[in-house]
Amino acid sequence: MSVQVREGAPSGEAELAGLIADSQELTGLVDEVRSRLAGRWAGEPSLLARMCAHAHTPPGKLFRAILLIESALAVGGDPRWALPAAVGAESGHVASLVHDDIIDGDDTRRGRPAVHTAFGVGDAIVAGDALIFDLFAGLAECRAAGASADRVVAALAVVSRCGIDLCRGQSLETELHGSGRFDHETYLNMVRLKTAALFRAACECGALLAGGDPRQVRALGRYAEHLGVAFQIRDDLLPYTSSAAEVGKPDTSDVRNGRLTLPVIIAHRASGAADRAVIEAALSGIGDPATARADLSDVLHRTGAVTATAGWARRYLRFALAALHALPVTASRARLAGYAEAAVGRDR
Amino acid sequence: MSVQVREGAPSGEAELAGLIADSQELTGLVDEVRSRLAGRWAGEPSLLARMCAHAHTPPGKLFRAILLIESALAVGGDPRWALPAAVGAESGHVASLVHDDIIDGDDTRRGRPAVHTAFGVGDAIVAGDALIFDLFAGLAECRAAGASADRVVAALAVVSRCGIDLCRGQSLETELHGSGRFDHETYLNMVRLKTAALFRAACECGALLAGGDPRQVRALGRYAEHLGVAFQIRDDLLPYTSSAAEVGKPDTSDVRNGRLTLPVIIAHRASGAADRAVIEAALSGIGDPATARADLSDVLHRTGAVTATAGWARRYLRFALAALHALPVTASRARLAGYAEAAVGRDR
Repeated sequence: MSVQVREGAPSGEAELAGLIADSQELTGLVDEVRSRLAGRWAGEPSLLARMCAHAHTPPGKLFRAILLIESALAVGGDPRWALPAAVGAESGHVASLVHDDIIDGDDTRRGRPAVHTAFGVGDAIVAGDALIFDLFAGLAECRAAGASADRVVAALAVVSRCGIDLCRGQSLETELHGSGRFDHETYLNMVRLKTAALFRAACECGALLAGGDPRQVRALGRYAEHLGVAFQIRDDLLPYTSSAAEVGKPDTSDVRNGRLTLPVIIAHRASGAADRAVIEAALSGIGDPATARADLSDVLHRTGAVTATAGWARRYLRFALAALHALPVTASRARLAGYAEAAVGRDR
Repeated sequence: MSVQVREGAPSGEAELAGLIADSQELTGLVDEVRSRLAGRWAGEPSLLARMCAHAHTPPGKLFRAILLIESALAVGGDPRWALPAAVGAESGHVASLVHDDIIDGDDTRRGRPAVHTAFGVGDAIVAGDALIFDLFAGLAECRAAGASADRVVAALAVVSRCGIDLCRGQSLETELHGSGRFDHETYLNMVRLKTAALFRAACECGALLAGGDPRQVRALGRYAEHLGVAFQIRDDLLPYTSSAAEVGKPDTSDVRNGRLTLPVIIAHRASGAADRAVIEAALSGIGDPATARADLSDVLHRTGAVTATAGWARRYLRFALAALHALPVTASRARLAGYAEAAVGRDR
């Protein structure tokens, strides 16, 4: 299978929408997730409800909800049993964005003020907490939607474990930040925890709630893990290949936060003393972030790190696609492959 | 039943320990909760594990875990089915403390640096999130401990709903802060959400997981709600009746954060223009917090607000005790009554 990462492409939103549009059933389910999210905090005048509604507006591309629904379909189950969990998956994702934006000092999200910008840090912490609780409220609702109690408990175990992994990954990123350790292995470990854990939770939950067997659940877990890594690597590249308008957040976040992203690690290892000094200065947090990003971008392109990083994304994309072979041949399986290609950015 | 709040008493920790010591079974279960909490993050060198272990050290009085276990016993069920949820209840409580201390700018907790003081705000947000996820991991573990899957799902629904209520209460407190609304009803509504919700989650969970019938679950929920209100009213009084050393946190937190606590509301309503001006100045956040606390304490004592507030605590204590009548007469029921009296501070 030959897959090429299209450098500088937006994040595959159009491809994702195109794939969903192919299935009337899926389109209906995703519309229902969107409408339930829009209604979830409506009609409640409280500050908490206003913050949670703000965090869900505009809705994202609902990638985790789509993965959850598609995993339910891929094991031949009834996706409606898993629908409340799909709504919850989006709440959990948005919770992590609300807290991340505080931690990273990112003032805008999806082209508008982040929750902490609009409501203050203290209240935004509380809003993120509520969205985590709402993730679990969604899981509980799957029982009434038709999932067996044992399946809901199995999904609860997966989601709570993956949630802790997500936190492990975020803390590990802080540890790396100060360490100056430019190595791939630690990076991949961090990304598996920080980004892939919620993808894994979504896919395993969808498969579990819809009655998938253990082999299918494991296959979708592997798919999700590799997809998550590929997705994060792609995300690492965006500040150096896209404009802020496309990404919807300031593309200086990674340099401001001194993040040891994969392109930075690759460039550092490939560089001589002069370029290493440029990289370290750019990540030091001293000086203008936009200039730092431009300096770093120059080194990353010049040393071939951008191209090499795209190669790593392709590699994990191939792993994700291979994991799908354990599933029955269905339109869902084909779309899961398509989502992975769209997320990483397929060459057309 | 005649119950008197003992003004200036410590928070009933000794009475609580005395009640637990009466039952060998309960002592063993609480010791096991303590030991599982101590072991939960041990042996993992990650920053996340170090933060979570820090948050759990020294252990608190495990009041929510004890309520959960005792509720399981009170409905005649096997408390071991609910034990992992009791560990989880403590994780959820500690999560709320970690985030609260950030929000309130309280730098110490349990006589040592708060998590955000020791590790920074960003990482402390992540640690609190992990502890919320760990609350749910504990719930999931109840299945293997013997609780039926349907019971675990019912408990999941209760805990996730109560978690959102907790967040509603915290946001409502912010809204009140700026409003200058000195009324009891809004205060009680806020406290039912902010403080009583987690007590309710603990008691209802214990009853549900151990197989209690709906009437017993409701009775324990009512008990917990009234207990939570009484407990918070008592907590509101502490800065004006105890020293910081007894409370384990700086007793200026409420004035620094301009909190409309019950004694403040009562004093404000009972005061003339001069004392109202003193109250409003003390809560304005301008000037030295220790002086503001002392000025406020003077007004609260002089206007009889401290005594009146203690009366409110007694009233909710009576409601809590009345709710227990719906349960079978057992040693657990008697201890639940004792916990309520100890928490509010019984006159001896």
